[in-house]
Amino acid sequence: MLVGPIEVADELIGALDPAQRARVTVRPVRTAVGMADHPTAARGESTVRTAVQAVHDGLADAVVSAGSTGATVTAAALGLGRWTGIRRPALAATLPAVEGPVVLLDVGGTLEPGPATLARHALLGAAYASVAHAVTAPRVGLLSVGHETGKGDRLRRAAAPALTAAPLPCDGRYVGLVEGYDISLGARADVVVTDGFTGNVLLKAIEGAYAMAGGPPSRGGAPRAAALLGVGGTVVVCHGAAGSEDVASGIALAAHLWRRDAAGTVRALLADIPPDPAPDRHDTEVAP
Amino acid sequence: MLVGPIEVADELIGALDPAQRARVTVRPVRTAVGMADHPTAARGESTVRTAVQAVHDGLADAVVSAGSTGATVTAAALGLGRWTGIRRPALAATLPAVEGPVVLLDVGGTLEPGPATLARHALLGAAYASVAHAVTAPRVGLLSVGHETGKGDRLRRAAAPALTAAPLPCDGRYVGLVEGYDISLGARADVVVTDGFTGNVLLKAIEGAYAMAGGPPSRGGAPRAAALLGVGGTVVVCHGAAGSEDVASGIALAAHLWRRDAAGTVRALLADIPPDPAPDRHDTEVAP
Repeated sequence: MLVGPIEVADELIGALDPAQRARVTVRPVRTAVGMADHPTAARGESTVRTAVQAVHDGLADAVVSAGSTGATVTAAALGLGRWTGIRRPALAATLPAVEGPVVLLDVGGTLEPGPATLARHALLGAAYASVAHAVTAPRVGLLSVGHETGKGDRLRRAAAPALTAAPLPCDGRYVGLVEGYDISLGARADVVVTDGFTGNVLLKAIEGAYAMAGGPPSRGGAPRAAALLGVGGTVVVCHGAAGSEDVASGIALAAHLWRRDAAGTVRALLADIPPDPAPDRHDTEVAP
Repeated sequence: MLVGPIEVADELIGALDPAQRARVTVRPVRTAVGMADHPTAARGESTVRTAVQAVHDGLADAVVSAGSTGATVTAAALGLGRWTGIRRPALAATLPAVEGPVVLLDVGGTLEPGPATLARHALLGAAYASVAHAVTAPRVGLLSVGHETGKGDRLRRAAAPALTAAPLPCDGRYVGLVEGYDISLGARADVVVTDGFTGNVLLKAIEGAYAMAGGPPSRGGAPRAAALLGVGGTVVVCHGAAGSEDVASGIALAAHLWRRDAAGTVRALLADIPPDPAPDRHDTEVAP
């Protein structure tokens, strides 16, 4: 289902093999939330809000958006609801590291989490690695400037005890602080937890490095899409500069997650986790 | 000059061609600040403090350290003094981007800068790009999650106006927000300003990506050493996992900077800049 201005949809459908055209339906919506708009613009009638509503109403199985991340997170949280115990959704990107996939989160869902939110994201990441990528007993690390205990800024020093105490699902275990290399190498952790600001710039820097190196490595480069965890449905975000292959990759990820019922399974794995006794109050939800 | 335990120095000298041995002198010091120690340990008698003192006393021209970054910053600030108007030193790393070198700072000198410190680091970066890499009229960008005005967390939103108003030396100009890719591609900016936490994990992630891609690109990969700006002497930091080629690269960088009198020239370029009317009071100086 294409959700957007009718003339854009017509152009896309016109470019299809005629035999494929019947597979595509259109929901005409004129208003889109621009990349420079405040994410709360997604509360009103907009392409992303309509796409989310289609999932809510059972007309679509998943949303794939290459628009403003903040607007997608806002629309998804409003339209599909947030899971109990997860106040801040996280965007999870999977990188093909040397020693297996590494789930990096958050890559832009919550730009300024507090320590309790980072600990909740550790739970999400462990469950997602297990459900989406069949990682057994995921090792969860907290990204910092060194792996020695105590390294990092105030947020990391406050978050480390919270992650140590976090009841990780799927036999996950907290392995302590990890560094930038560990995201690409995967030797220390299967899940790397960081704030959405750092994760977002990191992911794009890795993408830039692969472009600089003459293309991604043969086993796959930077991920082209990320899964939004913590909302009641399958939502995939591609970045704003996504090309056709990126969007195709996002659609494939959405289909993969939906077929495994990743959102429902991750949610069920966290259902038994007690609510956070001291949630962060002042972390910002999304980028403006 | 080797500064450290005598038996380690002996081993290094023993491995040299006998004709080269006379070039190396030794300052025996037993106590080193460990990677897990608090940086303030560098205030006492230690290898890094002694190495800095040798520069202060004119016995050496530069310090190269692959030890704790925080300890090196602390020792350098204490032993060589900080420049007037620069309360927080910055570590600057130069990456060989597609369109020319990109100076990324801070990569670990000041983990939690406030907006005024980021603006000061923009001045340092512009002057350094000009002096060390002959970049004319450097374009200075602030790293964020999108290039549209207003994107980012609270720190970035507060820093953008400060960078807009910053009196950049060397005909530098502020070009606004840049993203992770811009560090490797260099299309938007010659100098990328960020906090020391983000810069540090970013640099190591880029290094990891090159390792993953089967080695760095032909025009050079991630930098192996970074220059400490804002202290009264030439100080180069290699990372803690540095191998022999990394240390050699650090020594070569120190020699390059010393021959150009980069520290003195950058300092002189900033001498006419008025002191910051509202410096940050609560940013942390170095990693613990």
